[in-house]
Amino acid sequence: MKIAILGYGVVGSGAFEVLKNYGYDVKKVLDIRPHDELGDILTSNYDDILNDKEIGVVAEAIGGLEPAHTFVVKALKAGKHVVSSNKHLICTYYEELHNLALENGVTLRFTSAVGGGIPWLYNLKRSVRCDEVSKIMGIMNGTTNFILDAMITDSREFDDVLKEAQALGYAESNPSADIDGLDTARKTAISSSLAFNTIIKEENVDVFSMRTIQKCDIEYIVGRLGKTVRYLGFGIKNSDSVSVFVEPAILSYKSPESNVCKNFNMITLFGQSVGRLSFFGQGAGKYPTGNALAQDIIDIVNGDTGLSFTPQNLTVDNSVFKRSYYIRTKAQLEGEFIDSCEKINGNNHIITKAMSVKEIHTLSAAILISDSSSFFAGFEE
Amino acid sequence: MKIAILGYGVVGSGAFEVLKNYGYDVKKVLDIRPHDELGDILTSNYDDILNDKEIGVVAEAIGGLEPAHTFVVKALKAGKHVVSSNKHLICTYYEELHNLALENGVTLRFTSAVGGGIPWLYNLKRSVRCDEVSKIMGIMNGTTNFILDAMITDSREFDDVLKEAQALGYAESNPSADIDGLDTARKTAISSSLAFNTIIKEENVDVFSMRTIQKCDIEYIVGRLGKTVRYLGFGIKNSDSVSVFVEPAILSYKSPESNVCKNFNMITLFGQSVGRLSFFGQGAGKYPTGNALAQDIIDIVNGDTGLSFTPQNLTVDNSVFKRSYYIRTKAQLEGEFIDSCEKINGNNHIITKAMSVKEIHTLSAAILISDSSSFFAGFEE
Repeated sequence: MKIAILGYGVVGSGAFEVLKNYGYDVKKVLDIRPHDELGDILTSNYDDILNDKEIGVVAEAIGGLEPAHTFVVKALKAGKHVVSSNKHLICTYYEELHNLALENGVTLRFTSAVGGGIPWLYNLKRSVRCDEVSKIMGIMNGTTNFILDAMITDSREFDDVLKEAQALGYAESNPSADIDGLDTARKTAISSSLAFNTIIKEENVDVFSMRTIQKCDIEYIVGRLGKTVRYLGFGIKNSDSVSVFVEPAILSYKSPESNVCKNFNMITLFGQSVGRLSFFGQGAGKYPTGNALAQDIIDIVNGDTGLSFTPQNLTVDNSVFKRSYYIRTKAQLEGEFIDSCEKINGNNHIITKAMSVKEIHTLSAAILISDSSSFFAGFEE
Repeated sequence: MKIAILGYGVVGSGAFEVLKNYGYDVKKVLDIRPHDELGDILTSNYDDILNDKEIGVVAEAIGGLEPAHTFVVKALKAGKHVVSSNKHLICTYYEELHNLALENGVTLRFTSAVGGGIPWLYNLKRSVRCDEVSKIMGIMNGTTNFILDAMITDSREFDDVLKEAQALGYAESNPSADIDGLDTARKTAISSSLAFNTIIKEENVDVFSMRTIQKCDIEYIVGRLGKTVRYLGFGIKNSDSVSVFVEPAILSYKSPESNVCKNFNMITLFGQSVGRLSFFGQGAGKYPTGNALAQDIIDIVNGDTGLSFTPQNLTVDNSVFKRSYYIRTKAQLEGEFIDSCEKINGNNHIITKAMSVKEIHTLSAAILISDSSSFFAGFEE
């Protein structure tokens, strides 16, 4: 079976090199930019791929929604297996693409869309074959982890570290998708969909940005509480719903997450029989993510086209799961619940009693209006 | 395809429950002990399994060499796929069993033999399909990790923690296989065999026991060096050989291994394209290991019988890989090399210059004769 790669950017070129080094037959690469080193393999006309009966698997590494979506739909309808590293695409069109793959008797794989080189989604899908997953959580974004790790290790301020991350190429010039949580939200939605056998969209995920964290928060969390902080996506199974959210989380120094340094990722499932299972590695980059894309392709070339599933209808309900939160704000908080919570440094720092994800995200939206520097983080057991 | 499980002990019964809960057809369980709950499924006569044409996969969870070896050989020769959780068996007979599986067109899987519930070997085999692994290392034994973690966290002595581990069931009444490194050596040999596509036997692995570690070593490593210590197996690719060894290792507090608490395991590969990839979870226990055994079976039932390989002839040479070591001994050490090393507290504590695995293991064997309490640990970068 021959292979086509759509997009010769960072991930596409990484996968191309990996596959070529191991003797896999990449017949065509689609890119509108010139790449002399590709010779006849390069095409800018998608029909060259679509009409080529030898090409059995199409790897989409273009990113974004269009033309990726159109190309993937056409490939599936043409009876070609599809592999994608595109979390935006999968998060938005998972149900449609999944159904198209089923209808056309082909496979849709997207291990590289979450966790870069970490075979997280692949193993998650293996796990749910014979285990009940009660929770998934993870550091799924290297940029935010790099920032938090440097703030904690070197007692630096957010803006200062962000500039360094941008200079190093770990953060975009517009870093919003990373630090405001959209990237993690998409990865959490995809992971939760597989973990709980349902369809979760990015708009179902409650997200709190990590851009308001300050040195004073770190000083409080590390110095006073003896704990650390990471930016995590969570998917938690309730009795008949799931809670899915992205938040800064306060963790013990003994937690595996607390030693995830620099731009590394760690993603974890909790299974009824297997217990805690965590996967650690490079969550981005040409060769790690290219490797993961290549692994999905190799599975298909080897005839391993299974691991598909039929999603159930399980709703997201963020009012069920509850925990205690740390809040820093200058906004005036009132009411019986707040009165019952522990306050430090006057009213600026609050440790709440257990409250739901929905409650804290509603509260944070309100207090950000009067104090846009407000910050919160949940206490992860 | 129907399934037979050999041995209804901890792992066999765990796998049985996992498979039963998910609708897989375990037709026979072999055990010489009575298990009324199994009804007609139980047999004490292996021929009932061997002669049953419906049984396509045999899962060996007896442990030890005999009768496990005889049973597995017969199953392979009868054209049945074999899955085993038995590291002793695989480490001793890997070449024979691998060849028998090839000759008979069946699959031999043993993911659960290393790392309990962690899908380490499965992912390692996936990785080497399209990546060059330069090194594997891991905390592969929960007992030794429990002991070191408690010694470090609570400033306790070895004997005291060992007794607690025995009371909790984490250590055997004869704990030698764990604390003297045989268990880790076998797991390291199997992992290195897969990582480097060769056959490594347990007698090729240089092993230093961790039973001589004392509170004073922890005080020195943690208090003076600001580092921590774990008991690790290593497989390292040299240019035309591999170095394979088991030693206590001194690690940074920033390393992922340093936050592996209690009896958890963490096993890591370093791949040329994927980078560092670590797997963390429960390294033993009825349900975690039973789950891993079940996963191998499910792969085979699903028709995924690939991932076999033809081992190359790559020799173990422990004189190639070099690093610096911490040594504590009352033995008199002499010679130009020792004179050039850093000494603390008189001659009792030495930080060596880079020396090979072979050199340190030869030296330690010599100094243990005059001071049986001697201890060493390698500096892991």
